Amino acid sequence: MKTPAATSPSGVTLEELARLVGGEIRGVCEERLFGIAGIREARKGQITFLVNPKYGKDLETTRASAVIVGSQFPQTDKPLLITSNPFLAYARIAQFFAPQPSHPLGISSMTHCGEECRIGENVSIYPFVYLGNRVEVGDGVVLYPGVYLGDSVRIGKGSVVYPNVSILSGTIIGQRVVIHSGTVIGSDGFGFVQDGLTQVKIPQTGIVQIDDDCEIGANNTIDRATFGKTWIKAGVKTDNLVHVAHNVVVGENSLLIAQVGISGSVTIGQGVILAGQVGVADHIIIGDGVKVGGKSGVIQSIPPGEVVSGNPTMPHRTYLRVSSLNKRLPEMVQKIRALEERIRLLETEHNQERKEGHGTKSS
Amino acid sequence: MKTPAATSPSGVTLEELARLVGGEIRGVCEERLFGIAGIREARKGQITFLVNPKYGKDLETTRASAVIVGSQFPQTDKPLLITSNPFLAYARIAQFFAPQPSHPLGISSMTHCGEECRIGENVSIYPFVYLGNRVEVGDGVVLYPGVYLGDSVRIGKGSVVYPNVSILSGTIIGQRVVIHSGTVIGSDGFGFVQDGLTQVKIPQTGIVQIDDDCEIGANNTIDRATFGKTWIKAGVKTDNLVHVAHNVVVGENSLLIAQVGISGSVTIGQGVILAGQVGVADHIIIGDGVKVGGKSGVIQSIPPGEVVSGNPTMPHRTYLRVSSLNKRLPEMVQKIRALEERIRLLETEHNQERKEGHGTKSS
Amino acid sequence: MKTPAATSPSGVTLEELARLVGGEIRGVCEERLFGIAGIREARKGQITFLVNPKYGKDLETTRASAVIVGSQFPQTDKPLLITSNPFLAYARIAQFFAPQPSHPLGISSMTHCGEECRIGENVSIYPFVYLGNRVEVGDGVVLYPGVYLGDSVRIGKGSVVYPNVSILSGTIIGQRVVIHSGTVIGSDGFGFVQDGLTQVKIPQTGIVQIDDDCEIGANNTIDRATFGKTWIKAGVKTDNLVHVAHNVVVGENSLLIAQVGISGSVTIGQGVILAGQVGVADHIIIGDGVKVGGKSGVIQSIPPGEVVSGNPTMPHRTYLRVSSLNKRLPEMVQKIRALEERIRLLETEHNQERKEGHGTKSS
Repeated sequence: MKTPAATSPSGVTLEELARLVGGEIRGVCEERLFGIAGIREARKGQITFLVNPKYGKDLETTRASAVIVGSQFPQTDKPLLITSNPFLAYARIAQFFAPQPSHPLGISSMTHCGEECRIGENVSIYPFVYLGNRVEVGDGVVLYPGVYLGDSVRIGKGSVVYPNVSILSGTIIGQRVVIHSGTVIGSDGFGFVQDGLTQVKIPQTGIVQIDDDCEIGANNTIDRATFGKTWIKAGVKTDNLVHVAHNVVVGENSLLIAQVGISGSVTIGQGVILAGQVGVADHIIIGDGVKVGGKSGVIQSIPPGEVVSGNPTMPHRTYLRVSSLNKRLPEMVQKIRALEERIRLLETEHNQERKEGHGTKSS
Repeated sequence: MKTPAATSPSGVTLEELARLVGGEIRGVCEERLFGIAGIREARKGQITFLVNPKYGKDLETTRASAVIVGSQFPQTDKPLLITSNPFLAYARIAQFFAPQPSHPLGISSMTHCGEECRIGENVSIYPFVYLGNRVEVGDGVVLYPGVYLGDSVRIGKGSVVYPNVSILSGTIIGQRVVIHSGTVIGSDGFGFVQDGLTQVKIPQTGIVQIDDDCEIGANNTIDRATFGKTWIKAGVKTDNLVHVAHNVVVGENSLLIAQVGISGSVTIGQGVILAGQVGVADHIIIGDGVKVGGKSGVIQSIPPGEVVSGNPTMPHRTYLRVSSLNKRLPEMVQKIRALEERIRLLETEHNQERKEGHGTKSS
Repeated sequence: MKTPAATSPSGVTLEELARLVGGEIRGVCEERLFGIAGIREARKGQITFLVNPKYGKDLETTRASAVIVGSQFPQTDKPLLITSNPFLAYARIAQFFAPQPSHPLGISSMTHCGEECRIGENVSIYPFVYLGNRVEVGDGVVLYPGVYLGDSVRIGKGSVVYPNVSILSGTIIGQRVVIHSGTVIGSDGFGFVQDGLTQVKIPQTGIVQIDDDCEIGANNTIDRATFGKTWIKAGVKTDNLVHVAHNVVVGENSLLIAQVGISGSVTIGQGVILAGQVGVADHIIIGDGVKVGGKSGVIQSIPPGEVVSGNPTMPHRTYLRVSSLNKRLPEMVQKIRALEERIRLLETEHNQERKEGHGTKSS
């Protein structure tokens, strides 16, 4: 149902969008729709969405021609597209309206193409792209300027590699993968053995494999394996400046938020979320569905389904309590000091009375 | 008053430098000055500066021909340039002496230039630069090798973009902006909606706008907005490896130190300083003039003018107290245990005495 | 003893490998060896290694033709290569087997070479490499696509610079240095002086010097000095996304793990290890042999040989105790509250008894 209608000058009807996302309509939208925007920014001829109740009052003043809402919504005369998951409907409609790239461009004459490369149909390979030997590029792939593909790199159909990305030899990239600018895939893992005062490098002879439908953020670093592969499984999304060390496995559909760092040989399950600036020590196993709060330090393995935070990590609820108590440490110290004083007093008096009592009794 | 004198073979007089920074002179400097250097590194014919009192003893041994000082300075025979802000005078004089680039170079024949671009006068566009369609480049702009400018990017007069920077479509850069190597501006914001097990991408259709006189460090990532713009206002300076997510606004003249990470839709005021490795959670508002200590985690909004630290943040003075107490936790636990023991003893004795006393009384 | 035997079709004998690493052999290995792999991945004709005792049981099932072991090893019929440091022997043998690059390629016609450059013998300079003026490139150097070398950069013999690395003017790189993709060397230090509301830039006129046998990870940022040099001494290894600010000195053979950030003018001794995501405040001195645990914040200088962790750092043993106690804060608060209650009770009773006692006595 992804049709060129979105970019056609005639737009689409609200009914067409309702069919796209499986929603129903309330009211009548007589205008054709040409795009989507935020509730405050939308103009006539655009659809908008109401997900966060705090924007409810904007429903009356928005200039949008129609509004995507969930099952709960304020009283309004605006034409509505009602769905069970308005945020998801918004994403799908935004994808529908997103400008289609004007590709394919073919292969620029300022591309360097090595020997025995296999290039698919309808590709767009920009100037200043370097392809090593035996590189395979699938149909419809887009390689922006400054992309480096080392020897024997394979990139599946429909993938997009943004400018100045370096993908080193042997890396295997699946279909519909997006890799944002400046990212490095297949750099050597950090492996050295101490020999007296100096460090002897352990050759990093494995590869990186990134499966279908992954999206890798900007300026990431994903190291090749020492042996075997560093493996980013299907549907994983990473934010910017994420570090993934050698031999790490990241399970399907997991999310690594900005500046996360994952040490060597860590195994991460499916559907995991590591929030921003989390660090994971080497050889840790993180179970399916685990959520780790921002800035946490993971130094022991986490069973599936747990929600943890802190450095080192603890159950998130404990963390909330601990971190609110933490700032009360000065108060606790004072309380302990006061208790010591009061007890000292009680003990003194008690001893004195005992002495007196004993004196009375025993004398 | 920025004249070519600095690079002329005849140098400048101390009087000329005093006029440049609005200072006054004590003693006589007969040599002409050709540059500036640290107090221990400076040679004859250079000026140096004394800002940190701990270098006071170097004043006698420096080979510099003159010294910039503040209102307080040690006894010396050296020719002095006295100003109310010697550190600022140092910066201005260092700028004066800094080598002027030998540009403009024009446009390299190994540049790719798209359609309908508008290129100003006196630009330097190096080899392997890629300009998309409808790019606008202002007068005197320098684009180093490997720079990528996507479609419709605009860069204002006098800006400098260092090697291998990727600036994606639609980005608007002001005048006299400096962008260091490897930085990515306009990558997609990290926006996904969960649909069952998989993540559906929210198209990121906004832009990044960077206003006049900003300086962006190396290997930064500044994401485009979902709608509207991610906005770095005039005079902001970022250090290296800084991450700025979609729809963030950073106010005028704020400083983001190395490895800071800012989540989506955060609003930062003017004159804010976020120290190294700080993380800020999404939708936070940080008021004007706020200072956040290194490695802090900001998970709630901060009113203007506050100085905070910690994860989560607290007033900086509290943080200092808390973090010094933190290492005394083992001691606190012991104290509590000792108190419990002493109280147990008091209670036991007390109960026994009461029993005895009661026994006496009631029997 | 680094011979081409490794890549010859005839392989090597176990005896030859034993001579290479100074080990002795137990059993007879009749096969010639063509490579090395992990104990579970190795095939016939490969050697493997047993370092971690938890893989001891794999010794019986491995398909490897021989196994490198230490002085302690399980009972087995497998041919063994016994050495005092099997991990080191593994690294050396892996280096021996690592594929030799098929260089040199000479200088690509799509390289830009400035004036007065001096290029050594047997270099490989790929397409889309930019060399400024007066650049010196030693024998056997490899410069991958997208590398930028600014004016007067010098790179010593046998160094390898991976794709899309930016090395700015004046940088001096030693021999056998490896620089991974996306790294920026010689970007401006972050130096500004406040002048009212705005920031005045301090020109960064120093350089970066990286000595022999260093390996710099991917997407690092190493800033030039304000004056003088930022100095990475021989044998230093940095992981990915490491930040080194202006005027930092890193001593010989130190290791900076991923996402470490080092502020300006820090001095780090020899053989130091900073674990992942450590931050170091400016002007700190870290002594020889210091080890700093992951995510630590170093805000005061550390004497040689210490092992520290935490933010701020404390002795590692204290840190372990503190961080385990930290999650017991809620329990501590409850205990203090309980103590307060018990003391209040004791005091009340005591006062009452005293009153009664006094009443009896004094009336």
